[in-house]
Amino acid sequence: MEIILAKQAGFCFGVKRATHLAFEAAERGGETYTLGPIIHSPQVVQRLEEMGVKALPNVDDIESGTIIIRSHGVAAHELDDAMTRNLEIVDATCPFVKKAQDHVAGLSKAGYDVVVVGDLDHPEVQGIVSYATGRVFVVSCEEEAQKLPRMSKIGVVAQTTQSFETLKEVVDVCLEKGSEIRIYNTICDATAVRQEEAKALAGKVDCMLVIGGFNSANTKRLAEVCAELLPRTHHIETASQVDPAWFDGVKKVGVTAGASTPKWLIDEVLERITEVERDKKR
Amino acid sequence: MEIILAKQAGFCFGVKRATHLAFEAAERGGETYTLGPIIHSPQVVQRLEEMGVKALPNVDDIESGTIIIRSHGVAAHELDDAMTRNLEIVDATCPFVKKAQDHVAGLSKAGYDVVVVGDLDHPEVQGIVSYATGRVFVVSCEEEAQKLPRMSKIGVVAQTTQSFETLKEVVDVCLEKGSEIRIYNTICDATAVRQEEAKALAGKVDCMLVIGGFNSANTKRLAEVCAELLPRTHHIETASQVDPAWFDGVKKVGVTAGASTPKWLIDEVLERITEVERDKKR
Repeated sequence: MEIILAKQAGFCFGVKRATHLAFEAAERGGETYTLGPIIHSPQVVQRLEEMGVKALPNVDDIESGTIIIRSHGVAAHELDDAMTRNLEIVDATCPFVKKAQDHVAGLSKAGYDVVVVGDLDHPEVQGIVSYATGRVFVVSCEEEAQKLPRMSKIGVVAQTTQSFETLKEVVDVCLEKGSEIRIYNTICDATAVRQEEAKALAGKVDCMLVIGGFNSANTKRLAEVCAELLPRTHHIETASQVDPAWFDGVKKVGVTAGASTPKWLIDEVLERITEVERDKKR
Repeated sequence: MEIILAKQAGFCFGVKRATHLAFEAAERGGETYTLGPIIHSPQVVQRLEEMGVKALPNVDDIESGTIIIRSHGVAAHELDDAMTRNLEIVDATCPFVKKAQDHVAGLSKAGYDVVVVGDLDHPEVQGIVSYATGRVFVVSCEEEAQKLPRMSKIGVVAQTTQSFETLKEVVDVCLEKGSEIRIYNTICDATAVRQEEAKALAGKVDCMLVIGGFNSANTKRLAEVCAELLPRTHHIETASQVDPAWFDGVKKVGVTAGASTPKWLIDEVLERITEVERDKKR
């Protein structure tokens, strides 16, 4: 059985940076916390926990020590809260997310009503939205954009992992809603590149494994995209979830991983597949 | 034979204002000129000429008197030229065109490369473009937009008579060309409203007359739109061009007119049709 690993599997730039900063802080020791999970990988969060880093939902109970801002960013008032306390802050917000936050703040200040193209439930979007000081709306598709009121000046930014097609559709609707539209395309193409590569891979293998947190939106989407082309697609978090029966009659297996999946989790899955194959041959 | 006149036939806001200003200046007397034809109606230009108002291509030969800036606007340097001479200036530029000119100047100043959605040959576009102090491009369709270079900050304005669909298509392409796009929708809906009404009318009559200058882009487009629905569509400038044969077997005739067509030209055509019918009954 041939195992093909996607070139773009695993950590994107922002996640790599955030994880590096978090482990660095953990190694320095002392009271260390993250505001929310550092990235959407339960295994990485657990490893940090084992090193003494606690993920807390807010800064209320923290009196001293180091606080790490997760890759998705946090709400403006949470950062303010952390700053008014006697805490050392390690800002691991993805620089691309930071840009979107800054643009929202700037647009609000310049008198624009802001439209964020993204998923209201996602922490990144909740963080971005919090930087608006005027009106702000979140829309995830054309239909939701149609319900926006008429506005004079509209500023548009996007969740970094949104699809370019959705941004275009929302912008087209915004052109009908206002006479001045100012768009910052804050989409990071890591997501699109990863998806394109996974689709190409799914098209030439018999079975596909997508590794990543079940709470990771980009991993779930990656699995969906592959499953559309190849029903024998499995979304797993760890090597222990690999089922040997998946490989019956399989000649080629493809492996990819979400942007928040560490290399060691991918390596463990690759090893597990090799092991399963060896066992079958016996 | 029933004659149905479109409600929106004839002068739009900007043309009405420009014509009013021009005739007012003509009545005051003295040396009076227009920079280019005041509007795209040869008959209105001729009437002004009879009142002593000359249309000149530039201010070079004018030493004194009043200069009227036409509804489509002129290039920034032409206006500057007029101002440095001892001339009284009557600015009959359509306020909607003026807005587009101002936005281009502002975008250039703010460091945007400017994309004007419009027809390079049209005097309005040539005027608007001249207000750019940085890079500026004119595109009339999606295909032309595809050839634009990659830019960092893109400012977009439209010729006031462009279709909204074309603006949307160009904006979609611009989203692929740069990371910040700032759009001022400077389209005046008079053109769209007139076209929609003309289409509805063409759908329920046997013959359609579209009155307006053969040099008027919006009249030509109006005639095209009607002809697509009703081949028996005729574009005329004056009543004398009406051919009695057009009405053979016609029960209903529709009449509309471009944005630069004066009421008296429309009235003359309506009279002429009534006259033709009367003659036929004899």
